[in-house]
Amino acid sequence: MLTENYKELALKAERVYETSLEKALKVAEFDSSLTEKYQALPSARGASTSEYGSPAKHPFEVYLKTLPQSILDITEKDPVGLLEDLKTKKISCVEVLKAYTAAAIVASKLTNCVYEFLPDEALEFARGLDRDYESKKGLPLYGLPFSIKEMVPFVGKAVTHGSLCYLDRVVDYNADIVNILIENGAYPFVRTTNPQSLMMLECVSYTHGRTVNTFNSDLTSGGSSGGEGTLNGLYASPFGLGSDIGGSIRSPAAFNGIYGLRSTLGRLPTADYFSCNIGSESILSVTGPLSRSLDTVNLVMKTVIDSKPWLVDPTLAPVEWKPETKTKFRIGIMTSDNIVNPSPPIQRALKIVHQKIGNLANFELVKFEPFEHERTMPILSKLYFEDGGRDFQSTVAETGEPILEQTSWAIDGVKDLDMHEQWEWNLAKQKYRKDYLKYWIGYTDKEGNVLDAVIAPVYPNVAPKHNKGKYWNYTCQWNLLDYPVLVFPVTIVDEKLDLPIKDYKPLNEMDEFHYKEYNDPKSFAKAPVNLSLIGLRNTDEKLIEIAKVLREEIGDIFAGQD
Amino acid sequence: MLTENYKELALKAERVYETSLEKALKVAEFDSSLTEKYQALPSARGASTSEYGSPAKHPFEVYLKTLPQSILDITEKDPVGLLEDLKTKKISCVEVLKAYTAAAIVASKLTNCVYEFLPDEALEFARGLDRDYESKKGLPLYGLPFSIKEMVPFVGKAVTHGSLCYLDRVVDYNADIVNILIENGAYPFVRTTNPQSLMMLECVSYTHGRTVNTFNSDLTSGGSSGGEGTLNGLYASPFGLGSDIGGSIRSPAAFNGIYGLRSTLGRLPTADYFSCNIGSESILSVTGPLSRSLDTVNLVMKTVIDSKPWLVDPTLAPVEWKPETKTKFRIGIMTSDNIVNPSPPIQRALKIVHQKIGNLANFELVKFEPFEHERTMPILSKLYFEDGGRDFQSTVAETGEPILEQTSWAIDGVKDLDMHEQWEWNLAKQKYRKDYLKYWIGYTDKEGNVLDAVIAPVYPNVAPKHNKGKYWNYTCQWNLLDYPVLVFPVTIVDEKLDLPIKDYKPLNEMDEFHYKEYNDPKSFAKAPVNLSLIGLRNTDEKLIEIAKVLREEIGDIFAGQD
Repeated sequence: MLTENYKELALKAERVYETSLEKALKVAEFDSSLTEKYQALPSARGASTSEYGSPAKHPFEVYLKTLPQSILDITEKDPVGLLEDLKTKKISCVEVLKAYTAAAIVASKLTNCVYEFLPDEALEFARGLDRDYESKKGLPLYGLPFSIKEMVPFVGKAVTHGSLCYLDRVVDYNADIVNILIENGAYPFVRTTNPQSLMMLECVSYTHGRTVNTFNSDLTSGGSSGGEGTLNGLYASPFGLGSDIGGSIRSPAAFNGIYGLRSTLGRLPTADYFSCNIGSESILSVTGPLSRSLDTVNLVMKTVIDSKPWLVDPTLAPVEWKPETKTKFRIGIMTSDNIVNPSPPIQRALKIVHQKIGNLANFELVKFEPFEHERTMPILSKLYFEDGGRDFQSTVAETGEPILEQTSWAIDGVKDLDMHEQWEWNLAKQKYRKDYLKYWIGYTDKEGNVLDAVIAPVYPNVAPKHNKGKYWNYTCQWNLLDYPVLVFPVTIVDEKLDLPIKDYKPLNEMDEFHYKEYNDPKSFAKAPVNLSLIGLRNTDEKLIEIAKVLREEIGDIFAGQD
Repeated sequence: MLTENYKELALKAERVYETSLEKALKVAEFDSSLTEKYQALPSARGASTSEYGSPAKHPFEVYLKTLPQSILDITEKDPVGLLEDLKTKKISCVEVLKAYTAAAIVASKLTNCVYEFLPDEALEFARGLDRDYESKKGLPLYGLPFSIKEMVPFVGKAVTHGSLCYLDRVVDYNADIVNILIENGAYPFVRTTNPQSLMMLECVSYTHGRTVNTFNSDLTSGGSSGGEGTLNGLYASPFGLGSDIGGSIRSPAAFNGIYGLRSTLGRLPTADYFSCNIGSESILSVTGPLSRSLDTVNLVMKTVIDSKPWLVDPTLAPVEWKPETKTKFRIGIMTSDNIVNPSPPIQRALKIVHQKIGNLANFELVKFEPFEHERTMPILSKLYFEDGGRDFQSTVAETGEPILEQTSWAIDGVKDLDMHEQWEWNLAKQKYRKDYLKYWIGYTDKEGNVLDAVIAPVYPNVAPKHNKGKYWNYTCQWNLLDYPVLVFPVTIVDEKLDLPIKDYKPLNEMDEFHYKEYNDPKSFAKAPVNLSLIGLRNTDEKLIEIAKVLREEIGDIFAGQD
């Protein structure tokens, strides 16, 4: 653990990025036209990681105008289609890497979503895969680069999880899931940004600065997997690995208009990821893929689970990946948690879904009432930081790294628990899990069909403005219960349709805060509107099958946008 | 929590037993001959639960001579065969209940294995099942009574888990697994003894006294599911439910010559069982069946898991019960943990197994070396009582209930952990689990066949003398790793073959203690010798399939004994 002053360390972090960028630029081999465009781009990165840059208002528009069509032809293609091209040698692994590296370089300048490029390692992987084409083309992910959240261990790299003091924590191993993906033909090409403490629904730290939203830089990228959200939101990565203990995959996926799966605990190896509070087992983080491609999410899940990861990671259950065979689904719609009501675009998205699938023969919709969601935060606020935040505090104690506003908010009021207090909160958790399961099963129909999934908001609003994301309940609710959640895109904010509600009577202070935040649809221009699809534990496959139907019915929400 | 003096409470506990016994005698309807024999029996119960009785030296011999053949015809039959008779109405449910109640009454006088009879409830169940024969005969466990360890919640009964202060803790619900078994046609007919604190490999408490061994009352019944061990050891229950956090199913199963399955965590509902340290999640107890019938163990597991208990208990994983389809098994033999070497009868049992299956075409035996088992106790001794035993201490604080020798031994040196200390020990646990899994996978052969199971001692000796069971490592090793273990009978102590080793050089103090304990095979006359069959997590089915072959090859170890 480093003890130098944080400003020096911030410059050191900046150099980590710059050094990797220089090498990445060599891999990407920009031509003079792209070089010129790239140099002229507005930058979301400041002079050091303790300053913020001046990003373009709508990064995705600039991104699409910057990259030449030859690169976009590769990066905009659905990764599952691209895999076909790789496997049939229509394109080489190195060509794919070069395109995605170029895309990530541009993406990162525009949104500050990359923590560090992995050009040397990625190039070696790509070359090796090209060389061994005959023996490796059959691998399910042959030649696909992917991005990893900075907290995911990768050999030879320091893992900071957003705290400068760990800039010297170089690991000599890969996360198990990274190894599994590599064995299946994929390889990491970039490490993405994550925030200080990892406990915020946005992405700001002194290791990188601030990651902004794909569509509107006044808005947050979400977090803590904010870099993944934006990088994938721009299609500058085929897929990425995030982690989620309170919404950290889902908020960035939702705020950037892509898919993100918070998988059921015990299906994917996560135990070797870094964070504060390692060893605390009361509430555990899980990993999962973020991608604009639902088919890629499916393929990644299937590939990892087919590899029998429980023979490597003893925390996993041997629950095989079984494609859902059901053809009719019983779906609940939860329009509010009755604590904070969602904003107009979220309400509209819920209506869209209702309209699109309400009349389909293979869907039965029922209204789903939240079950005592007010029990959630009292439990989680004790169990997230059951040491009273001491472990986190130690990461800033010596370096003087300021505690950011959103971290302060997360650790406000936490308590160093006595063992019996921990047990009591664990019991409250266990009881709520049991009560909720019984409640959910209560939605079973007379023929015995259990509720397959619930569609609900991901957050009371679309991506909030920076430092305004304060309400985790729509996501952390399902962490407490350990239910899998797949976030999926529905629409984008419509300046005409999504007008603020007049004469609204807030339910409480938090509701009032969020009501006031949504002051004008123009503030949220072009923001995507995603929803959650929630299932009982270990129904991850089913959520994907349902999302496929939703995708079919809803269509591409970005069609016509650029 | 009661605060009266423990001596008064001990008398109260005695009355709970006596009251239930009076009613049970009415259900059993002893004829005059049996009444006479019963009254003349030596009793393992003292005048109150704070005294010990004067049991027969070899309870099973007296048991078999006491019960008339008409009762033994029912109770000695394999429960799976008895089920056929019940389903075809060759015998009624009430007849079966009467026979087993008679058997349990006799068993309990001889060994003090019953905490409380459930005559009213059982009779109502049995009558209901007879009445609804047509609609219920198809249930997999139609008409089968079963026993439950006292700590298992049963509606209307106080759950003490061995502490007198809880004599007033009446619950208004059944454990989930009890409900599932009832839904499948079985029903509890007796609650069995468990020891103070539940943390000992024997069964002594002020709620019941001391439970002695089925075969030799100088020896312990094992524990904490000691009542189950002895009741099932005598065949006075078709099967019973125990629980196991350090050996509490396996030691009583082994010491009484029956099967006992410590299932993988997450397969059977256990979260609603009572014990001290409720809410502590670092090391969790699991349930499982004890029975002299391997087919019954299999049927109970299949029945509970086929009911999809994960839709009731949110702690469970949806791992279905799949009969093992493998026909060739790769088995490791671990002859010692290299900390305490097993006694001569255990060594002989290992050789018997080797001889019996070593040449079979469908078995491949390899020597299995223990992997750093000395790491286990330092971790468990911290995580079993992570509150420094405060919760347990509070159960004796007001009543003055003396802390028993074996409880003292279990809580000796425990420490009230700070949150970071708990996390550190959790990390040590996680690391060891990961290291061990890798080590086990290292036994995979060149064709990719993973080691299917390991055969190892359950304890360094057969059932020890009272208060001498001090070494948990052969069982708690697998609790730390959460590996399923099926305990199976191999032989009984042979006074000629199992002579103490001469000129033995002990490895350490603990080894010396156990070496000296096995002073003479006569001290352990008629004691059964069981072994453990250990598998990777969630291979419970496979262990049963392997045990079937072992049963076939080894034969009935009690044939010719009476």
